Amino acid sequence: MSTEPRKILIVGGVAAGMKTASRLRRLDSEAKITVIERGVHLSYGACALPYVLSEEIEELDEVRKTANGTVRDEAFFSMVKDVDVLTRCEALGIDREKQLLDVKFLDDERQQQLAYDALVLATGSRPLVPPFPGRDLAGVRALKGMEDAAEIAKNIKSNNHAVIVGGGLIGLEMAEALKSRGMDVTLLEMQDQVLAGILDSDLAEHVHRELRNKGIKLRLQEALQEIRGENGRVQQVTTAKGSYAADLVILALGARPNIELAQEAGLEIGPSGAIKVNKHMQTSDQNIWAAGDCVESRHLINDQPMYLPLGSTANKHGRIVADVLCGKPANFPGILGTLLVKVFGLNVGRTGLSAEKARQSGFDPVSIFAPSPDRVHSMRDARPILTRLTIDRHSRKLLGAQIVGPGEVAKRIDVIATALSFDASIDQLAKIDLGYAPPFSAAMDPLHQAANALRNKLDGLADSLSPLQLKQQLDLGKKLLLLDVRSPDEYSEVRLPGAMLLPLGQLRAKVNELPKDTLIVPFCKISLRGYEAVRILHAAGYDKVAYLEGGVLGWPWQLERGAAEV
Amino acid sequence: MSTEPRKILIVGGVAAGMKTASRLRRLDSEAKITVIERGVHLSYGACALPYVLSEEIEELDEVRKTANGTVRDEAFFSMVKDVDVLTRCEALGIDREKQLLDVKFLDDERQQQLAYDALVLATGSRPLVPPFPGRDLAGVRALKGMEDAAEIAKNIKSNNHAVIVGGGLIGLEMAEALKSRGMDVTLLEMQDQVLAGILDSDLAEHVHRELRNKGIKLRLQEALQEIRGENGRVQQVTTAKGSYAADLVILALGARPNIELAQEAGLEIGPSGAIKVNKHMQTSDQNIWAAGDCVESRHLINDQPMYLPLGSTANKHGRIVADVLCGKPANFPGILGTLLVKVFGLNVGRTGLSAEKARQSGFDPVSIFAPSPDRVHSMRDARPILTRLTIDRHSRKLLGAQIVGPGEVAKRIDVIATALSFDASIDQLAKIDLGYAPPFSAAMDPLHQAANALRNKLDGLADSLSPLQLKQQLDLGKKLLLLDVRSPDEYSEVRLPGAMLLPLGQLRAKVNELPKDTLIVPFCKISLRGYEAVRILHAAGYDKVAYLEGGVLGWPWQLERGAAEV
Repeated sequence: MSTEPRKILIVGGVAAGMKTASRLRRLDSEAKITVIERGVHLSYGACALPYVLSEEIEELDEVRKTANGTVRDEAFFSMVKDVDVLTRCEALGIDREKQLLDVKFLDDERQQQLAYDALVLATGSRPLVPPFPGRDLAGVRALKGMEDAAEIAKNIKSNNHAVIVGGGLIGLEMAEALKSRGMDVTLLEMQDQVLAGILDSDLAEHVHRELRNKGIKLRLQEALQEIRGENGRVQQVTTAKGSYAADLVILALGARPNIELAQEAGLEIGPSGAIKVNKHMQTSDQNIWAAGDCVESRHLINDQPMYLPLGSTANKHGRIVADVLCGKPANFPGILGTLLVKVFGLNVGRTGLSAEKARQSGFDPVSIFAPSPDRVHSMRDARPILTRLTIDRHSRKLLGAQIVGPGEVAKRIDVIATALSFDASIDQLAKIDLGYAPPFSAAMDPLHQAANALRNKLDGLADSLSPLQLKQQLDLGKKLLLLDVRSPDEYSEVRLPGAMLLPLGQLRAKVNELPKDTLIVPFCKISLRGYEAVRILHAAGYDKVAYLEGGVLGWPWQLERGAAEV
Repeated sequence: MSTEPRKILIVGGVAAGMKTASRLRRLDSEAKITVIERGVHLSYGACALPYVLSEEIEELDEVRKTANGTVRDEAFFSMVKDVDVLTRCEALGIDREKQLLDVKFLDDERQQQLAYDALVLATGSRPLVPPFPGRDLAGVRALKGMEDAAEIAKNIKSNNHAVIVGGGLIGLEMAEALKSRGMDVTLLEMQDQVLAGILDSDLAEHVHRELRNKGIKLRLQEALQEIRGENGRVQQVTTAKGSYAADLVILALGARPNIELAQEAGLEIGPSGAIKVNKHMQTSDQNIWAAGDCVESRHLINDQPMYLPLGSTANKHGRIVADVLCGKPANFPGILGTLLVKVFGLNVGRTGLSAEKARQSGFDPVSIFAPSPDRVHSMRDARPILTRLTIDRHSRKLLGAQIVGPGEVAKRIDVIATALSFDASIDQLAKIDLGYAPPFSAAMDPLHQAANALRNKLDGLADSLSPLQLKQQLDLGKKLLLLDVRSPDEYSEVRLPGAMLLPLGQLRAKVNELPKDTLIVPFCKISLRGYEAVRILHAAGYDKVAYLEGGVLGWPWQLERGAAEV
């Protein structure tokens, strides 16, 4: 072998690329490490950009600074990391046989061939922007890089009209950011819910309510048709249902992996449309690795390929590529699709599979929907969270969770993500020694509450209906008895339309007054009493009983308020 | 068998007892369930009492109300749960052969024998109060039940003097509560640190700093000798080192299990001094079960018996006893010693074993101490947390964690508790797909940062010293070079005494100016740059190098501040 230091070329200088370079240098002080970056900014936190625009991050440059305030630019990487970075330099093509990368310097059009012993593709992703009319008008922008954030920032003006196209993570974060800056915000979503593919529709309904309560003009099932402007500036957005004044349009329709370089070089592309890699992040060429947003992931629960670009995954990738390039055993097992998003006062999280996805993947899913206060309920700061857990009926193993609420959601999502990583059963989850102190949790953690409710359902102690299941039955006009087992005070404050009041304390005495031929659906505020009622009804010989999961708190649709005849 | 419903007697009506009763009724609508309770209050949340006293919970009765405001009294349990509760009724003795419980009604001294088919001991715990002089003076109180809280509340008066004896969980919660009510608070702790047995001493030092910053008069290594008073009221507390004016004294010296009933009946008591049970919560008598604070636990990591009474454990016990009594397969695997406590602006948590305990248990522990911001560092609300992870060198399995800081601690403790429950390795922890969004976490979660730092240490990439290890070397006068690799600005703001400044960006150029025969200890704010410096020094042929874990942020002892010659 040659005595020259090996040459490692990295295409892409944001998350995965710079992480790979930095770790590589720490493991190998000799290698010649060169990073090619088409843009000018390196190693910036793209996920933080909505928070620059909301001014929760003080200034744009913060997203490319280290925690101690150093800008991560070429000089930083050269001095501190001994890594050469070529910015404004585009990779044009790969000669895999000769191990050469063709690059072009964008400022002077100069072209060059760079030799590599190992090539790492960290080419990232780009926003999906369909070719509708008006997409190039000033004031129309997708949010991807720092330049986009700077351009959007120029267009933020109190009381001006912003239209956000797409109700995914970035769309929702931008809705909050622009609203917080005083803009009038319309959010267009093609589907009948925001966070489609992330939240079940009844949980998404809680997000809709929050968006509307905070003044967002939410337009569901409205696809963007055209953006109109004058003198090159945006003025209006039209859909099949109407048109909306717009001084600023944010296109938030999702991301696509940058695979062209890989594809033209004949590297294998996975079914998700991103670059296919093995567990060691190696592409179909043994001298080429890939990491970050351009790479296809594997879902740990159903072992299926998927595309979900995230900075957290990119950082893990980078470390693994560097380790593998230095002969250390390292592999990336896959992802759980864990996502968190703050939507005004709601925290929203998902990890693992939804029941629907689980069914499509061959599982026999059973779910529960269980709200709880996030800590001891009498603490002044206690806030509810609404938890849906899904498991496989046969194995009793966890498959996924969705949690929404003003309370502490992220903790519970991370606990479930951890449990999912170790193939936990619902029975194991219920017994984990989670931390308990009144400011942080309740003696029964919300996850334990939910796990036990699900075990009760699995074990035949109490059948139950999700809010969506009950809504569907009501919409179909099914005959059933909605039995509100709360107190008269609670009932007269807020209630489900058509429900009959019978406080739990009176149920044992009056149980025989209820019909036996109708499905009885007891519920309370969060359906702990609803569950209790099912047990009492069962004991009294009623077998057509199923409580409403989540009770009044979890019901996202119409409620009646104010004085009621009790 | 008899056709009569079986009789289940439960001694103790707080957490484990009432949980057992409630679940039992839901599983068995026929059984005659009777609960004996010596006091008058049922099913109250004792852990919440400090928060009643701090007024974060509105009124005392809240701790025995359901989330919807119903008081859980005898009538509630009778009507809603069909459970008979005898309050002010003391269990005197068990005739195990005849399956009879002798009880006495405290109000009228009436005695009675109650027959049982199954007996559940949920006798709880009581505060440890050694027999020092003055313990019975008015104004001297341990905090256990609602009566104690009511009595303490009467003695809270702004500017009056409170002395808290004991720096454990309750002592610290009470220090914060009483301070928040305007009292002058002195905290006496016999040992040289608070939270002894929970936090390592260098982490406890951060808690000491917070207590002092918030105005608590912290007296370490001072044991209570005597409480003095006049006219039956407390006035003064004396230790070997001084005396302290006292209008209110809180005794917070720990809890002891109430085992007398079990012991006198000849049931087996474990080495921890609490009632011994098997995995099904059954005592050494096959007709007697035990649950909650009177029961010995088993630590899941070292499989050793321990005593750690907690409401969360009691609730799990109750469910399991009820299940077992109804023939359902159920067992309690053990605990991790997970604890959380809020100390003013610090969140503190522990789960699993400390390195010291791990060593005593036969492991070969390796620890890391790694601070991180709790979310994207540029977010306005980002706050640091200081994480210590401990693993076993041979198996690379997690053994425990301690985390302290103003940032989000509870989430990370719960993730580690979950990982510990599934025997996770540090390598697995580093790759869990934890939730990432700027308001909740960073692209590299603090746990991933810590896990990777520990993997680097294990794999020989960088040796390091904990703050305590460095302190010990400095105290011994060991010759070493403290190398501050931060910027001149950071250095002149705050620094470790005696450290030499050499910013990381200049290290590669000036590396040969450093001595090779002295241990070099690089560090920065949180020692990410410190680690980087180790790698650069290694590459330059230095082998006596170990970075300071936690850097300036993690250093709990003296720091120099203000202008310095650079």
